[in-house]
Amino acid sequence: MLIRGGMREVVLYTSRAQSRRVKFKGKGDLPMNHIADLAALKKPLPDALLAALGALFGERFSTTVAMREHHGRDASSYDPMLPDAVVFVESTEEVAALVKLCSEYLVPVIPFGSGTSLEGHVLALQGGISVDLSRMNRLLAIHAEDLTATVQTGVTRKQLNHEIKDSGLFFPIDPGADASIGGMAATRASGTNAVRYGSMRENTLALTVVTADGRIIKTGTRAKKSAAGYDLTRIFVGSEGTLGVITEVTVKLYPQPEAISAAVCSFQNIADAVNAVIQTIQLGVPVARVELLDENGVRAINAHSKLALPEQPLLLFEFHGSENGVKEQAELVQAVVAEHHAVGFEWATRPEDRSRLWTARHNAYFALLQLRPGSRAISTDCCVPISRLAECILETKADCEANGMVYSIIGHVGDGNFHVQMLVDPDDAADIARAEGVNARMVSRAIGMDGTCTGEHGVGLHKIDFLIEEHGVEAIATMRALKHAFDPKNIMNPGKIIRW
Amino acid sequence: MLIRGGMREVVLYTSRAQSRRVKFKGKGDLPMNHIADLAALKKPLPDALLAALGALFGERFSTTVAMREHHGRDASSYDPMLPDAVVFVESTEEVAALVKLCSEYLVPVIPFGSGTSLEGHVLALQGGISVDLSRMNRLLAIHAEDLTATVQTGVTRKQLNHEIKDSGLFFPIDPGADASIGGMAATRASGTNAVRYGSMRENTLALTVVTADGRIIKTGTRAKKSAAGYDLTRIFVGSEGTLGVITEVTVKLYPQPEAISAAVCSFQNIADAVNAVIQTIQLGVPVARVELLDENGVRAINAHSKLALPEQPLLLFEFHGSENGVKEQAELVQAVVAEHHAVGFEWATRPEDRSRLWTARHNAYFALLQLRPGSRAISTDCCVPISRLAECILETKADCEANGMVYSIIGHVGDGNFHVQMLVDPDDAADIARAEGVNARMVSRAIGMDGTCTGEHGVGLHKIDFLIEEHGVEAIATMRALKHAFDPKNIMNPGKIIRW
Repeated sequence: MLIRGGMREVVLYTSRAQSRRVKFKGKGDLPMNHIADLAALKKPLPDALLAALGALFGERFSTTVAMREHHGRDASSYDPMLPDAVVFVESTEEVAALVKLCSEYLVPVIPFGSGTSLEGHVLALQGGISVDLSRMNRLLAIHAEDLTATVQTGVTRKQLNHEIKDSGLFFPIDPGADASIGGMAATRASGTNAVRYGSMRENTLALTVVTADGRIIKTGTRAKKSAAGYDLTRIFVGSEGTLGVITEVTVKLYPQPEAISAAVCSFQNIADAVNAVIQTIQLGVPVARVELLDENGVRAINAHSKLALPEQPLLLFEFHGSENGVKEQAELVQAVVAEHHAVGFEWATRPEDRSRLWTARHNAYFALLQLRPGSRAISTDCCVPISRLAECILETKADCEANGMVYSIIGHVGDGNFHVQMLVDPDDAADIARAEGVNARMVSRAIGMDGTCTGEHGVGLHKIDFLIEEHGVEAIATMRALKHAFDPKNIMNPGKIIRW
Repeated sequence: MLIRGGMREVVLYTSRAQSRRVKFKGKGDLPMNHIADLAALKKPLPDALLAALGALFGERFSTTVAMREHHGRDASSYDPMLPDAVVFVESTEEVAALVKLCSEYLVPVIPFGSGTSLEGHVLALQGGISVDLSRMNRLLAIHAEDLTATVQTGVTRKQLNHEIKDSGLFFPIDPGADASIGGMAATRASGTNAVRYGSMRENTLALTVVTADGRIIKTGTRAKKSAAGYDLTRIFVGSEGTLGVITEVTVKLYPQPEAISAAVCSFQNIADAVNAVIQTIQLGVPVARVELLDENGVRAINAHSKLALPEQPLLLFEFHGSENGVKEQAELVQAVVAEHHAVGFEWATRPEDRSRLWTARHNAYFALLQLRPGSRAISTDCCVPISRLAECILETKADCEANGMVYSIIGHVGDGNFHVQMLVDPDDAADIARAEGVNARMVSRAIGMDGTCTGEHGVGLHKIDFLIEEHGVEAIATMRALKHAFDPKNIMNPGKIIRW
């Protein structure tokens, strides 16, 4: 409601002479000019296009409000912005046909995977067609000897892991949500395993992409490495649907480790915890996961998952390797964390114990929500060089406290990546504005530490201005040159990542 | 001589109606139309530019034949194609000033690092200015806690490792030659360690780049991961100087392993060796290096390095980890190779023994040259999914035999990447043509197996047509759109990777 309300009100702010950020009721500090500019370009779909889509897709083409509402929102705190229509595609060729039509009629194309993006990626700022890719959910090939899988874009990460579980292999990238593999590629997703296995940047070998003029290209091969020309794969990974539609993805798989173990320990302060991780990594311990929860996060999961962890900063480790290897890793880490005054080191090798700890970690978001009934969580994301992580987290915590936020911090600490989750009253504009202020200062702080405005959530609609702050206008001009070259009509998810 | 001779003769072939590949004396099957087209565009440098460069760079600006000849050749078998002038730059700002001038006068800019590229990357097809970056050789920052180094582009990999050796860290990418880090980024280099540590694609965090219009951009931060917009870093990594000039590089470093050990063993045939590697990787053994030498390669290093290895296909492993870890890895590998009928498994933990083996491996190229005095080696490069590697190598060996080549095969077998080195008589056009024929069929074979025309050497001048074969014309059109957007005047290393 808020944004649609905003789109009515915001004609006040369409002049570029106005401040580029305006306070807007209920939404805090958002680039509303941009939204208004694009909303002003919104036109009804041409009848001829409607007829052509109906003829091509039949019942898989929908303009019902319910369908449009479902496709006009993601997991961000934005209110929905609806596409004009939704099409359920079933093949790369159908996507190409659809994009060709949209190109002809200058209508926006917004790829939609599982709708779990966090920065407004799938919102239809300008209307247009939401391309629902969830029915493109077939595994096309598993090459166990090569450790690769080729899947249609709508296959989710859990589906992939379920379907390959008997092969002895697994796909490690875990962004939390059961996102589609295509959506994960499009947002350069990562998650808890990235410290060991990398992100979608490192784990995508090749893509099939429909370009903005409806051509079908393959961006790579199944060779593990290649020096063959411009890295089209990495151009589309992280492009958030603004350069083309990803329809097939070839990813790397990994052998299921012979042994997995987990360990937890608590620290008197966050600096000790981070320093323990720095030393662990410098010793070359190949930790598979290392997650930090601040005391608020621990308190929340204690309450939610009936645990009795000390309500202090906590590290949660996972080790993958041989039986001896994980034992050795755990012992080394135990010695390291002891040097940093850790208490209560517990090592869990039994699957049920590991599972209990990691389930608690994965439920941290929901656990936090229960601390303030009726609230909504605003999730943030930044990433800094690990040497600056403790400082960045501590200053951000101080800011949260100074603003009276109800919050917790969760960090993929081995990568220097952390999230502040803040609970806000969705009906309290001042509360939301305070949270957006904390977020803005956190992101600027991270950028000032030679870090990035987003470690894994992407830019979407929300971080367009932070992207400029991070890269500078000259680098943004170079990004813009790419966008203009690949999508000269600005029909591919317009208004995301950069302004036209 | 040959190419320059070719450039005179080749006016016969400038019509695009002619076959795109023409036989040319002494060079086999090369895209001579392309060379001729560009040579036809060659013009003398404008006097005003010469004056401006002289004023800006003084004695660091040279037009002597000796200097131009040094900068008009690389480690490929191409004869030199000379730039019109050479400028030794000392800062990013100087590069920007130089590129701005070249942009104004429409003069080609050809970045030159250490001249060790293998596919004609630095040849001045159209003349222009060779930008020698070797004096930009300062380490700018080592962040040991973050495992990153930021260096000027001309720092070589050995220099970097030498300067950081007391930090307990190392930079693993090892393409053989002591290449500059900027050149390695520009060609997406890798080498023997890539199976464990990745290539320059995975190990470059950020670049400073001078764009084709002389702007200075930073492509990333020191954050270990980022989802912040288009992946400018990966766009420039592997772009071979055709999109901009890389002037600074931030790379990942790794802890020096506590223990390193090596092992060798021999196999009755290449399929057994490759299958042993596949099984090793599927077991999750984190081998740091695994190199294959065919029987010819073993024969050559036996003769050159006074070894007595069985003249059969050989695998050479290196393990990095804890003392126990490398022992466990070696034992696992020993069990695996035994299943594949390996003989003579030898495990070397003493540095001098490891060093002897790996020095022999690194000298394989020179060792081979001694098998045919007076010859020149033609080095090839392709990469396939590992499940197809044995087949690809065996068919290629059969082709070498059928053509009477003196050759050996060396493979970075964990990555599916291999090189055939063929010895040719530099004065025997038919001999060279046979070698080029073997190469062309090998590359097509690799592409047919869902592999790539180059695993690590890059495209340069030599693989432009193979790139089309690999990616298809639609993907090449997308690459061309990138080139046109980033370098609209076609002054950045023109004629490499793609035709205009």
